Amino acid sequence: MTDQEREPAATGAAAPSGPPEPAADGTAPQGRDETAELRAQLAQSDERYRRAVADYDNLRKRMARDVHQEREDERTRVAARWLPVLDNLELALQHATAEPASIISGLEAVREQALAVLADLGYPLRADLNEPFDPSRHEAVAALPATDAAPGTILQVVRPGYGTDERPLRPAAVVVAKGA
Amino acid sequence: MTDQEREPAATGAAAPSGPPEPAADGTAPQGRDETAELRAQLAQSDERYRRAVADYDNLRKRMARDVHQEREDERTRVAARWLPVLDNLELALQHATAEPASIISGLEAVREQALAVLADLGYPLRADLNEPFDPSRHEAVAALPATDAAPGTILQVVRPGYGTDERPLRPAAVVVAKGA
Repeated sequence: MTDQEREPAATGAAAPSGPPEPAADGTAPQGRDETAELRAQLAQSDERYRRAVADYDNLRKRMARDVHQEREDERTRVAARWLPVLDNLELALQHATAEPASIISGLEAVREQALAVLADLGYPLRADLNEPFDPSRHEAVAALPATDAAPGTILQVVRPGYGTDERPLRPAAVVVAKGA
Repeated sequence: MTDQEREPAATGAAAPSGPPEPAADGTAPQGRDETAELRAQLAQSDERYRRAVADYDNLRKRMARDVHQEREDERTRVAARWLPVLDNLELALQHATAEPASIISGLEAVREQALAVLADLGYPLRADLNEPFDPSRHEAVAALPATDAAPGTILQVVRPGYGTDERPLRPAAVVVAKGA
């Protein structure tokens, strides 16, 4: 088994390429053997380096494929979550023709189901009504005078917001109370 | 300084570690210089290898983060696509209270919008009615005798299928024509 000696990493010594310098003593046999061993170690180290580079390249290619596949898989997972909502929307429509009065409760149920899917994906409906306006999660579309609300209070949610502070999906569009 | 690198056990070319052998000739200065140069080259090669290993490790960590982020981003993208559908469902419900007759056309539009989102994500609604049954993309939930359709023809789509042959999302649940 090989267990070769290493130079410390910090030396960073470049291989000298100048002309040979004379040796201080004449231990030829010792130098000869050392040379052969060093050559073997160098060949080994070079080979090991080449393998590491090839490994790097393979990893890069494999992970690029993984990223692509992961994205595709996530798209499929999330899209599939909406199919039951769509199914129920279609059922509600089918019933509506036969029994128009039932459609509103049927569609309320579809709406609840859609909100549950969003919440389950990590994007709950935010309750913004009567909250103080926060530019990081609200978009003010209008400001109205209000006698019974502090300035900056959200008077109306025009389009609801979804998500959390950590994972916002969409800010709410709101009407805020104007200062006096 | 660390000196802990090991060659994998399976590789060949072990560095000889036996006693020195006598040299055939006595070119001491030449051998001396060669040894120094080989040592420098070996240090360089080892350093290069260590860097390649560190690069590999960094790439692995970075790409694991990328995969996670890519998945999160895709989830957000796909979930966000459904918000306009939900908005319109809510608008239809609001209108329904004031004007019940308008709800069916409004909801047909919501359904069309949902189908467009799915198609745009790569999962179009499949048209399976009257097609020959294909177990790779259909689930037979019933078989009925039919006089005006070839055996195996799809007589009814109970629950529609979505996707393509390459990227199926859900098989259609269908009723097929029985053989005579």
